Amino acid sequence: MFALRGAYAPIPTPFWNDEIAYPQLKANLEKWAASRLEGLVVCGSNGEFPLLDEQEKTELFMFVRKNFPANRPVIAGTGCESLRTTIRLTKLAAEAGIDAALVVTPWYYKGSMKDDSLKAYYSELADLSPIPIILYNMPRNTGVEMNAAVISELSQHPNIIGIKDSSGNIVQIADILNKAATDFAVFAGSGSFLYSSLVLGATGATMAVANVVPDLCAEIIHLYREGQYQAAKKLQMDILDINAAVTSKWGIAGLKAALDMLGYYGGPLRKPLRPLNVEAKQQIKYLLEKIGVI
Amino acid sequence: MFALRGAYAPIPTPFWNDEIAYPQLKANLEKWAASRLEGLVVCGSNGEFPLLDEQEKTELFMFVRKNFPANRPVIAGTGCESLRTTIRLTKLAAEAGIDAALVVTPWYYKGSMKDDSLKAYYSELADLSPIPIILYNMPRNTGVEMNAAVISELSQHPNIIGIKDSSGNIVQIADILNKAATDFAVFAGSGSFLYSSLVLGATGATMAVANVVPDLCAEIIHLYREGQYQAAKKLQMDILDINAAVTSKWGIAGLKAALDMLGYYGGPLRKPLRPLNVEAKQQIKYLLEKIGVI
Amino acid sequence: MFALRGAYAPIPTPFWNDEIAYPQLKANLEKWAASRLEGLVVCGSNGEFPLLDEQEKTELFMFVRKNFPANRPVIAGTGCESLRTTIRLTKLAAEAGIDAALVVTPWYYKGSMKDDSLKAYYSELADLSPIPIILYNMPRNTGVEMNAAVISELSQHPNIIGIKDSSGNIVQIADILNKAATDFAVFAGSGSFLYSSLVLGATGATMAVANVVPDLCAEIIHLYREGQYQAAKKLQMDILDINAAVTSKWGIAGLKAALDMLGYYGGPLRKPLRPLNVEAKQQIKYLLEKIGVI
Amino acid sequence: MFALRGAYAPIPTPFWNDEIAYPQLKANLEKWAASRLEGLVVCGSNGEFPLLDEQEKTELFMFVRKNFPANRPVIAGTGCESLRTTIRLTKLAAEAGIDAALVVTPWYYKGSMKDDSLKAYYSELADLSPIPIILYNMPRNTGVEMNAAVISELSQHPNIIGIKDSSGNIVQIADILNKAATDFAVFAGSGSFLYSSLVLGATGATMAVANVVPDLCAEIIHLYREGQYQAAKKLQMDILDINAAVTSKWGIAGLKAALDMLGYYGGPLRKPLRPLNVEAKQQIKYLLEKIGVI
Repeated sequence: MFALRGAYAPIPTPFWNDEIAYPQLKANLEKWAASRLEGLVVCGSNGEFPLLDEQEKTELFMFVRKNFPANRPVIAGTGCESLRTTIRLTKLAAEAGIDAALVVTPWYYKGSMKDDSLKAYYSELADLSPIPIILYNMPRNTGVEMNAAVISELSQHPNIIGIKDSSGNIVQIADILNKAATDFAVFAGSGSFLYSSLVLGATGATMAVANVVPDLCAEIIHLYREGQYQAAKKLQMDILDINAAVTSKWGIAGLKAALDMLGYYGGPLRKPLRPLNVEAKQQIKYLLEKIGVI
Repeated sequence: MFALRGAYAPIPTPFWNDEIAYPQLKANLEKWAASRLEGLVVCGSNGEFPLLDEQEKTELFMFVRKNFPANRPVIAGTGCESLRTTIRLTKLAAEAGIDAALVVTPWYYKGSMKDDSLKAYYSELADLSPIPIILYNMPRNTGVEMNAAVISELSQHPNIIGIKDSSGNIVQIADILNKAATDFAVFAGSGSFLYSSLVLGATGATMAVANVVPDLCAEIIHLYREGQYQAAKKLQMDILDINAAVTSKWGIAGLKAALDMLGYYGGPLRKPLRPLNVEAKQQIKYLLEKIGVI
Repeated sequence: MFALRGAYAPIPTPFWNDEIAYPQLKANLEKWAASRLEGLVVCGSNGEFPLLDEQEKTELFMFVRKNFPANRPVIAGTGCESLRTTIRLTKLAAEAGIDAALVVTPWYYKGSMKDDSLKAYYSELADLSPIPIILYNMPRNTGVEMNAAVISELSQHPNIIGIKDSSGNIVQIADILNKAATDFAVFAGSGSFLYSSLVLGATGATMAVANVVPDLCAEIIHLYREGQYQAAKKLQMDILDINAAVTSKWGIAGLKAALDMLGYYGGPLRKPLRPLNVEAKQQIKYLLEKIGVI
Repeated sequence: MFALRGAYAPIPTPFWNDEIAYPQLKANLEKWAASRLEGLVVCGSNGEFPLLDEQEKTELFMFVRKNFPANRPVIAGTGCESLRTTIRLTKLAAEAGIDAALVVTPWYYKGSMKDDSLKAYYSELADLSPIPIILYNMPRNTGVEMNAAVISELSQHPNIIGIKDSSGNIVQIADILNKAATDFAVFAGSGSFLYSSLVLGATGATMAVANVVPDLCAEIIHLYREGQYQAAKKLQMDILDINAAVTSKWGIAGLKAALDMLGYYGGPLRKPLRPLNVEAKQQIKYLLEKIGVI
C-alpha cells in the first residue's frame, strides 16, 4: 500500500519551441533520481498543468513514470474544473502506472465551492478512482479554502489518503492532524513550513524548492526523524529565502531560472506566463550562492 | 463591421445525462430569438465553459450560430488558461461563423497576471485572431483585476473592440470610458449596473438576467436611448433582486432554476456545480412573480 | 428640518507644530464659504478624526460652526469605537450647533460588527441623539461592510436621515435607493462616483475633492438637476484623476498638498501619517494644471 | 532587564453598569495570580482597549499592577491611532509601574500604513518611551500586515524588545526569528499556534485562552522546555477548539462567557460588542467539559 511520506519535488514541465522538451526532461529526471528525494509530482501547479492539454498530460504521466526509478513513487496532478474530466484523467494516470492522484479543488466557480460541493466532488472521485486520492488545498491560486471540517470528513474515505496543504495556515494543519483519520497523511505544500508541519505530525512535503535543493529538503526530514531538531530547524531557516524566490515571489519563472543556474534544464514558460528579468535572476543567483549550491 | 451594443444573454449550456442537450438548446434559442435581445454569448461564465471540452465548445459555437437568426450576433467565450489554446479556440470560433470572441483573463496563475502579462496576452491574441476580441474582466471568478490603464492601452489595438466588465466597479468603468479609444465599447457584465453603465457611456451589457427577462433588459436600453431616464431607472430597480438571485446569490444553479420556471429548459448542472435546494427555488419563484413574469 | 443634499467638503484639519492651526483654518473656511459648496463636514476621515482628542474635536465643532455661514450646514463626524463615547460626542456636537452627525461604523472589532450589532448600535444612538444621524459606510478604512438590508432597515428610524456610502459599490447604492425609506438621503462618499449616484437618485455627496475644486463639484450637481446630463458627465470625467490623487492614491497627504498649491493652507499631517514626496507633488500639480485650476 | 517569555493572559476588562468593575477584577487577578501564568497584559485587544477612555486605561494600569504579584510582569496595551497619544499613554503606563508596552499598529488609515510609516512610528515611540516596546501585529483587527523586513529592522532598536504576532502566519514567524536581532523575543498571539511558535524559537505567548486555562498554557511551554515534545504537542491539540471558541469564533463575548462558567467574573461587554446567545454558550460549556476544566 502506497504511503505518502518524505520529500517530493513537484517538477516543472520543460518546454522548447512551446512543446514539451522530453530529452531535457529525461536529463532532469536523472538528476532528481540521483538525489535523496522520495518521489516526484508531475503536472502539479509548478508543472503548469492548466496550460497543458489532456494528451500532453497523459504523455507526461507515462514518460515520467517510465524514466524515474520504479521503486520510487510518482504522483500526478489530475484535478480539472469538471468532475468528469478529473475522473477521466485520474484513470489515465492509473493506466500510466502513477501511484496516486493529487487533486486540486476546482477553481473557476469559487463562489460555488461550498463544503457540500467539495465533499461530493472528492467522494465521488475517490469512489471511482483506481489509485489513491490526495486532496490539494491551494487558496493562493484557486481562491478556494477547503476547511479542516471538510478535510477531516473526507479523510474517512478509504481511497483518500492525504492532503497537500499549500495554505500555510498552521492552525488549520494542526486542526486537520487533530481531527482527521489516523492514517491520513498531511503534506506541507511549501518548503517554508516544512519543519513546522513535521513537528505537528505531517509526514513530508511536496515543495517547489525541492526541485532546486532536493537533498537539503530531504535532510530536514531526515534530521527531524532522527530527533536532531536544532539541526533540522537551522536548515529550515536556511532555505526560507530561496523557497520564497521560487514560489510566492517569482513563481514558476523563478523556479525555472534557478534550475537553469544549477545544471538542470529550466527553460521558457508557456504564455501567459513570462520569463524573469535580469535583476530578479541576479537575486536568485545571490540566494543560491548564499546557501552554497552554486 | 461588428459593433458591440444592446442587450446580450450569456446563455447557459443545457445538459441531459451530463451531455449537451441540443434539442432543448434549440427550443431555448427559438425563445430567445423571439425576444428583443440583440445577440447571445455562448460559452461564457454562465455557459459553464470551464466544464466543457474543446470539442463540445466547438460544436456549441456551430450549433448556436446556426440556430439563431443570422442577422443577430453570436459571441463566443474562447478564453482558456494558455494563450495557445485560446488562439486555437478563437480560430475555431471564427470558422463557426462567430462574430467576436469574449476572452476572460487567465485565472489559475493569478499572482503572475501582472499588467505586462495581460497586455502581452491580449495583444498577441488580437494580432492572430480572425475575429474581433472583447476583453473580459471577471474578478469574482478569476481573482484577477485588470485595471483601467491596461484596458485603455489595449483599446488602441484595432482588433480589440471592447470589454465586458463584471467587476461592478463603477469608477473603473468611468475611467475606461474616459481614457479608452473612442470606438472602444464598454459592456456591463451584470444587469445590476446596466443603467449606471449606460449613463456613463456604455453601449450595452451581457448579463445572466437577460436569459430570464430578455425584453425587460432590452427595454432598459431602449428607454435610455429614447431619453426616458426615469422609466429606465425604474425598470433597473425592478430587476435588481432577480438579477442577484441568478448571479451573486445562487449563480448558474439559480439561473437554470429560473429558466425551468419560465418555460425554458434549465436542467441540471455539471459537477462540481450542484442544483438548488427547494427553499432557494421558492424564493426565486417569488421574485419572478413579483416582477410579473410568471 | 435639515435636508441632506448638495456638495459637501469633508475638510482636513490643519496643523502647526502638531496643534490645530485655527487662524489657517479660518482662512480656509472663508474660501470655502465663498464657493458654491452646500456645506462642510468637520472631523470626517479627511479631518484625521481618529488622531484628534475629544476636546480637540469639540473645539473644532464650535470653531467651524461659528466661522462658516449660519445658513449653510455643518455636519460633524462623531463616530468612535464605543457607543458611549459616540453618544457623548454627538451630544457635544449638538451643543456646538452642528446640524447632523456623520457616524462611521465601529472599526477595530470588525469581526464582531455583524448585522445585529450594527442595527443595535445605530438605533440606540439615534434614539438618544439631539441631532439627525447620518450612517457612514467606509469599508476601505474600517474593513466593515454595512449591507443594503441593514441600511434599509435603519432608514426607517425617524432620526436616521441618510447615508454617506464610500464603498463605491454602485449596485449597493442602487439597492439602498430601491429599498430604503422614501425620505432617506443617499450621499456618494467620493467624487469619483458622484454623477453615477445622482443618476440613481442620490441627493449629493461629501467628497475630498470638493475641498480642492468645490465649484466644479457643485456644478456637476447643478447641471444634473438642470437636466444637462452630457455636460454633467463631462465634468465628472474631468475630475476623476484629481479625485483619485487626493483619495485612493495618496489620501490626506495628497489632499493637503493640493490645497497648499491652491492658496489654501494644507500643511503637515499628524503622525503616523506622513507628507508626500516631491514626485507625487509634481504629479498632483500636473493634474491641477490639467483641469485649469492652477 | 525585563525579558519577554512564558505564558501571558491578555485579560478582559470586567464591566458592571457599563463601568469598570474593580472588585470583580481584583478577584479575577487573585485567581490568575494563583496560576502558573508568567504575567498579564492589560488593555490588549481582549481588554476592549478601543472602548476605554484614556483615564480608564490609566487607572487600569495602576490597579492591575498593584493587585498582581510585584515579581511578575504586567504589560500594557498603549497603542492608539496617533503617535502623540500613544507616547502619552506609554509614559502613563511607565509611571504606573508597567513593565513593557504592547503597541498595536495604527489601524484606521490602513492604506497609509506603509513600511516607512510603521518604521518611523515605532522608532520615534521607542526613542521616547521609558519602558520597553513590544510590537503588535494583529491584521484580523487592524487590516494592517507588518512584514518581516520591517519587524527585523525595528528589532535592532535597543528599546524594542519583541513582537506579539497574532497573524498566525508561521512562515512570517520563522522569517522574523531568522532575521531579527538575536535578543528579540517573538511571542505567539494566540494559543492555536503556541507550540508551532515555540518550536521555531518563540519564547512564549500572550493568548486569550490563557485567561481560561492558564495552567494548561503554562504547561505546554514547560513541557516544551523540558524536551517533552509529544506531551506538549498533545496539550496543544487539546486546546485548539476552546482556543477558537474564545478568539476567531466568538471573540471577547466567548471569552467572557467561558470565564463566567469557570468561577471568574466575565460579565457584559461594552457596546457595540454584544453578549453571546444561549446556543453558543452551550457549545462553550461542552468544550470546557471536554477538556475537563468544568
